[in-house]
Amino acid sequence: MTVSSFQPPARVLMGPGPSDVHPRVLAATARPTVGHLDPAFSAMMDEIKSLLRYAFQTENALTFPVSAPGSAGMEACFVNLIEPGDTVIVAINGVFGLRMKENVLRCGATPVVVEDDWGTAISLDKVAQAFRDNPGARALAFVHAETSTGVRSDAKALCTMAAESGALSIVDTVTGLGGIPVQVDDWGADAVYSGTQKCLSCPPGLSPVTFSDRAADVVRNRKTPVQSWFLDLSLVMGYWDGSGGRSYHHTAPVNALYGLHEALVMLREEGLEAAWARHDRLHHALVTGLQAMGLEMLVDEDHRLPQLNAVCVPEGVDEAAVRKALLDDYGIEIGAGLGALAGKVWRIGLMGQSCTPRHVTLCLAALEGTLARFQANIATGQAVAAAQRALAA
Amino acid sequence: MTVSSFQPPARVLMGPGPSDVHPRVLAATARPTVGHLDPAFSAMMDEIKSLLRYAFQTENALTFPVSAPGSAGMEACFVNLIEPGDTVIVAINGVFGLRMKENVLRCGATPVVVEDDWGTAISLDKVAQAFRDNPGARALAFVHAETSTGVRSDAKALCTMAAESGALSIVDTVTGLGGIPVQVDDWGADAVYSGTQKCLSCPPGLSPVTFSDRAADVVRNRKTPVQSWFLDLSLVMGYWDGSGGRSYHHTAPVNALYGLHEALVMLREEGLEAAWARHDRLHHALVTGLQAMGLEMLVDEDHRLPQLNAVCVPEGVDEAAVRKALLDDYGIEIGAGLGALAGKVWRIGLMGQSCTPRHVTLCLAALEGTLARFQANIATGQAVAAAQRALAA
Repeated sequence: MTVSSFQPPARVLMGPGPSDVHPRVLAATARPTVGHLDPAFSAMMDEIKSLLRYAFQTENALTFPVSAPGSAGMEACFVNLIEPGDTVIVAINGVFGLRMKENVLRCGATPVVVEDDWGTAISLDKVAQAFRDNPGARALAFVHAETSTGVRSDAKALCTMAAESGALSIVDTVTGLGGIPVQVDDWGADAVYSGTQKCLSCPPGLSPVTFSDRAADVVRNRKTPVQSWFLDLSLVMGYWDGSGGRSYHHTAPVNALYGLHEALVMLREEGLEAAWARHDRLHHALVTGLQAMGLEMLVDEDHRLPQLNAVCVPEGVDEAAVRKALLDDYGIEIGAGLGALAGKVWRIGLMGQSCTPRHVTLCLAALEGTLARFQANIATGQAVAAAQRALAA
Repeated sequence: MTVSSFQPPARVLMGPGPSDVHPRVLAATARPTVGHLDPAFSAMMDEIKSLLRYAFQTENALTFPVSAPGSAGMEACFVNLIEPGDTVIVAINGVFGLRMKENVLRCGATPVVVEDDWGTAISLDKVAQAFRDNPGARALAFVHAETSTGVRSDAKALCTMAAESGALSIVDTVTGLGGIPVQVDDWGADAVYSGTQKCLSCPPGLSPVTFSDRAADVVRNRKTPVQSWFLDLSLVMGYWDGSGGRSYHHTAPVNALYGLHEALVMLREEGLEAAWARHDRLHHALVTGLQAMGLEMLVDEDHRLPQLNAVCVPEGVDEAAVRKALLDDYGIEIGAGLGALAGKVWRIGLMGQSCTPRHVTLCLAALEGTLARFQANIATGQAVAAAQRALAA
């Protein structure tokens, strides 16, 4: 067996994540590794916690990145807050709500499922009814920004409902953070997890999380041990909380944290509000272009995530062939539909560094040319200009 | 709050890991991120699996890196193979054996502990007795290369004993892989996990694992679901097993995997036997130098890990002050004692890229100068020359 060094192909990442990583972040990732207990590294960890508090808009002490991808961040929230026998209301309107239910089951708890159609937002009425039917529910779990459908749900209303029912709120905003307002303290959310490879534009592999004081108390007062040693907050915090000196728990992913630090510095430089406005503006330009082509969006206008655009595949078009052509001819990656939406939608990401006029323009031009080549029934020659007019407006 | 880009200090990593990362691996880590389902990335994943089979000396189909540090690799072994009510014999002769016991408990299983003094190898007789006392034990868990003490135990004998008792073997070789022989098929081991930041000299963050066909059958025939969704092998393998097309499970840490690929290519170029010989040779040079200084090793000669050297702190020396001086004056990181050995030993790593004549020479010279400055009762002026003679022999 002879294996050579891997040279990745040149790509333009416009799927559901990872997004394009800025050269500054890549360069940070490649700085020489230091020890996970090095005093200089400890100081950087403190900066990451502060920067994450800014990104999450929270004062929560318990704010840090889990040393593994978003799925592990999700699991960290459930295994720490949920105990066997608990009842958890889980709102499902896409793949990641399903995954939350799976987490509840594996904690030995009982999920009460509130379902909404994929592509629609979580119904507040249904959740309110679920709380009336299950007054002792320990938590409400829901997805703020559903990566599988491109839907934004009303996090503040849902967290408020949970708090008023004496339940914890567990919120997935893997795709939200840095792209749309994520206001943890204003929402009154108890446990919120995200990912690095979406609107923060880091390489994948870390999951920023934040826990309210109320959630921290719940962890402290558990009756049973947390089923995961690796994700046990009471242990992890001995490492991430520098106040009493750091104690070894696991070896932190040092270089990945360099990258996250740099990406958060960049977010701070741009400013959260400016980043949100950029995502919003380019999303409107993209949608204007797609609609000028005659394509339809899956999600109604009021609930669209700017950073994740689910576009309906036109009748008779081989969706996988279109994605392959975009990748082969242009190096553009867009996402397929997941689960119930497989074959029915494309997911076009405008996340972080992949949310620029050049991404929107190239994507529209490439998609139009490709669809025309596949003889899809679309209007040609108008999409790019329409998007550019929207950008200029 | 104003936060600048993080510039790590220049370090020479000679602790218990991470070790120095080669510029080739750092450069690989910084290549542009591509999608975790990109066909080019999938091909690289297949190469990683092949290269890991070489490193582990196994034909196991189920061989891949867990997307999180070694502690998560440990947990992946336990949560997949152990079910509530199982009995697991756990050999403890250091910190990581203790952690294995903790994993057994969190799986709802019963640990039967076999203890040996920290700094000594696992007693085969005691384990044999434990099997006689617990004929229905589901597994034997032990640490091949104890990072907390620098002890190597007899993995082949222990795995054979487990197999003869109808039990699975779960083996920690986080510090072993790439530094000393790890021969999974020859041992007949069932589940083996490692880390990337030791003798493979990658940044921390991934945990290579391998499972025998027998272990894979046990996973398939479980009565209860795996308690971790993130680490559930039946799901993870849908992503890592390319034979039927990859299905999305979690977003792989793309850039960290670039780094692991490059490090494994480098290991292949050097050759496993050559890497083992290098660790052995430089270990002997280091020990010769330390002994010429009058320092004592914690572990008897037959059971020392070449890559992790536990050195007894001389009477009356402030061990933390010595480590701080090495770090401040020379940029050299060595490790403190852990657990029962805190304050009693230093741990000097010679792992992967940190296992070179320049590391041994610098470390001896710096340690000698520092100890002399702290007025320790040591012989001076002889350590470096003694090590150099050992290297020349």
